[in-house]
Amino acid sequence: MMDSCIVYTIIYSFLISLKGSIVKDIIQPKLLKGFRDSLPSTESIRKHIIAKLEKVFTLSGFLPIDTPAIEYSEILLGKSGGETEKQVYKFMDQGEREVALRFDLTVPFARFLAQHRNEILLPFKRYHIAKVWRGEKPHSGRYREFMQCDFDVVGSDTASADIEIALLMYRSMKTLGIQEFKIHVSHRGIFNALLDVLDLHDQSVDILRLVDKIKKIGEKAVKEELSSITDKKSCAAILEFIVPAPTFAETLAKVKKLVSAENPHVQRMTEISSLLEEIGIANFFYFDTSITRGLDYYTGIVFETFLSGCSEIGSVCSGGRYDNLVSVYSKEEIPGVGASVGLDRLIAALESLGQLPPVPSGADVLITCIDESIIGHSHKIAEILRSENISVEVFPSKKKLASQFTFAEKKNIPLAIIIGEQEKQQDAVNIRDLRKRENHDHLMLNEAIVIIKELLNP
Amino acid sequence: MMDSCIVYTIIYSFLISLKGSIVKDIIQPKLLKGFRDSLPSTESIRKHIIAKLEKVFTLSGFLPIDTPAIEYSEILLGKSGGETEKQVYKFMDQGEREVALRFDLTVPFARFLAQHRNEILLPFKRYHIAKVWRGEKPHSGRYREFMQCDFDVVGSDTASADIEIALLMYRSMKTLGIQEFKIHVSHRGIFNALLDVLDLHDQSVDILRLVDKIKKIGEKAVKEELSSITDKKSCAAILEFIVPAPTFAETLAKVKKLVSAENPHVQRMTEISSLLEEIGIANFFYFDTSITRGLDYYTGIVFETFLSGCSEIGSVCSGGRYDNLVSVYSKEEIPGVGASVGLDRLIAALESLGQLPPVPSGADVLITCIDESIIGHSHKIAEILRSENISVEVFPSKKKLASQFTFAEKKNIPLAIIIGEQEKQQDAVNIRDLRKRENHDHLMLNEAIVIIKELLNP
Repeated sequence: MMDSCIVYTIIYSFLISLKGSIVKDIIQPKLLKGFRDSLPSTESIRKHIIAKLEKVFTLSGFLPIDTPAIEYSEILLGKSGGETEKQVYKFMDQGEREVALRFDLTVPFARFLAQHRNEILLPFKRYHIAKVWRGEKPHSGRYREFMQCDFDVVGSDTASADIEIALLMYRSMKTLGIQEFKIHVSHRGIFNALLDVLDLHDQSVDILRLVDKIKKIGEKAVKEELSSITDKKSCAAILEFIVPAPTFAETLAKVKKLVSAENPHVQRMTEISSLLEEIGIANFFYFDTSITRGLDYYTGIVFETFLSGCSEIGSVCSGGRYDNLVSVYSKEEIPGVGASVGLDRLIAALESLGQLPPVPSGADVLITCIDESIIGHSHKIAEILRSENISVEVFPSKKKLASQFTFAEKKNIPLAIIIGEQEKQQDAVNIRDLRKRENHDHLMLNEAIVIIKELLNP
Repeated sequence: MMDSCIVYTIIYSFLISLKGSIVKDIIQPKLLKGFRDSLPSTESIRKHIIAKLEKVFTLSGFLPIDTPAIEYSEILLGKSGGETEKQVYKFMDQGEREVALRFDLTVPFARFLAQHRNEILLPFKRYHIAKVWRGEKPHSGRYREFMQCDFDVVGSDTASADIEIALLMYRSMKTLGIQEFKIHVSHRGIFNALLDVLDLHDQSVDILRLVDKIKKIGEKAVKEELSSITDKKSCAAILEFIVPAPTFAETLAKVKKLVSAENPHVQRMTEISSLLEEIGIANFFYFDTSITRGLDYYTGIVFETFLSGCSEIGSVCSGGRYDNLVSVYSKEEIPGVGASVGLDRLIAALESLGQLPPVPSGADVLITCIDESIIGHSHKIAEILRSENISVEVFPSKKKLASQFTFAEKKNIPLAIIIGEQEKQQDAVNIRDLRKRENHDHLMLNEAIVIIKELLNP
């Protein structure tokens, strides 16, 4: 309906032109490497998980936004240019503008904030669930198109806002039925303060990169590489810092010793620790000083979430605090804190834990067709059942009843209704429970509705 | 978390590099022409409408799928090429593959069907709600990025499947609270049969194009232009055909006279007419023989939906039946019937009718902050309220109470909770109804929950 004539002409000429030469000209259906379709079984589960997360977000007053998939390259990439841009899908549009597909939801959010500053009340809490694209080398579990699910509070540099994000991460996991997980937290400001204390500020990029690899290459390898950058004493201090103690309190005590209890970042972390205790969720948090979130732009608390029993999958929800999100687009300083659920990774984790929600059935009831002359009556009954919140599929043409039952079973539809001319005359229906292979025959429609509801929710 | 180092390096170097020269180097935040952001007020309403439509679809056993936004150009455009492709966003990816952004959801669905034929059970009912992109000249109400919402039944060429789509269109409108609407139906096969009867098959493209313009240029202009293509008798027959009679039955009678009652397409339309009567929704349908759906690929029934009181907006839900969707990608013939809700147009129509759902409030309750030392207690109470399905925002730092009330009012939050150290000690809260400016002071939390629920749903 939004369809303009020109686009239809494409499709039309395309379909028609090939009509005479179908066999010769078939185009092999295929997808680009790193891209995939989502069949109903997968897509239903994805929608189910997204709905649960959205419920968590809105219960905390986070509201949805959306931004375009395509923006000016300059807006998305700044003037950085060079080798690093290679992952981003960039091209010239019809008007010879340099455009790009968004590669994350953070940069568009920064642009959005600067652009709509007058329409937005701070503190502003938004979530954004949308696809992003990156032309990375695709490998197991990593795709060129994937969905991100970001939530941020901007306009408040407080422990309260930090805790709000921590709570959302906690509640997201709980809501999805995940019982055993740990949210690892650290603080980039404290790490930088340590480097300042050790007078290693200039080597910070190399050191961050190295620390970030500790989970991959191990403590010993990090130590070896560190000693080539720093002196022995600094190396020992960094190692002491990044290897966390067993409890939050002990790690906090160590950090106070290595940096300073007066450091504002250490104080913030102390405050967060008390808040976690007071709210009663401290058990789910672990002060993990080895976490730096790599080279990204965080300046405060950082988060990563690990599920017990699937360490190979990595963090399923990560984020942190940044001093100023919009500096590229505005003179105003807007601090923020947020996190992002890695939906595909989360689904993979739930799958490996056997905790994926069951694939929803195609419908609750299949109204079979044994007499095409009463199909109108079948649709009428279907509409009545739907008004009772029962999902109904009507088989569209006559076929052996056994095949229709098989169809229902393959689509995971638990109940079938069988109606012939006689039932139509008497306003009756026969129900078959396909799971138990039991019949409930000759029921008036009102009775049938009651029985269907009982059979669906015993 | 899905974020690779390289992309972070982009953002990092981008944000950091500009840090020293903020004032000079600010990038003006702006969007490409034809694209737009969706602020929370709009996005909440869009999500609300989509959720209602999804409920309609799943109640009829339609299941969701998704496909990539980017595909091989050849797959999306076939080998057509030429002038017509200009609207499609096409580019070379990092691997020098010619790729394009999808411009509708029908072509990807055809490819999907052919590719996953072995995983799919026919008849197959799917819905797909996703963005598409077209580099059209943007003008009022037409954007380069917009959302489509398609639903189709494939694998069944029956009146039952046709009626299923008609029912979904009907129920979509009803569910959105639209009372007055008409779904105009016609049949492309019947129109073609008329052209065959008149021996005008070769001029069909010109005639279709002309008939399609009747609502725009009027009957008289169409007549004039028609007479330059056909003889007087044919011209009269076409005009008689395309100007519908007042009732479905009368138009059907006329069509039988002009074409033939024995024509299978006329018989299908007769069957559909009886089904609409039997199901009891015939009042919402109008046999409008002027509808052709332009040059597109329909071969059977076609649909357009018009809302009373906003004729200027055009059809908000259109579709039809096609003989064979997958011929480009497969030798198998799979017939189908489907329709597409024009979400943006529908929202515009609801807005002009004053029937948009109200903008949801930012939250049910704002827990104000008058003492930062008890923020942990506030978050604790917030979590308890959320577990009661009450959405809660916690104001993150101390500010004048009046400003916090104003903040809540601007965000459409109806209730505020005020807690100080004394209330914390006594496990009490004070509630303020910001709408009525009434206080409910010193309530135990359990009492408070009851009162909040009453105040929210009086």
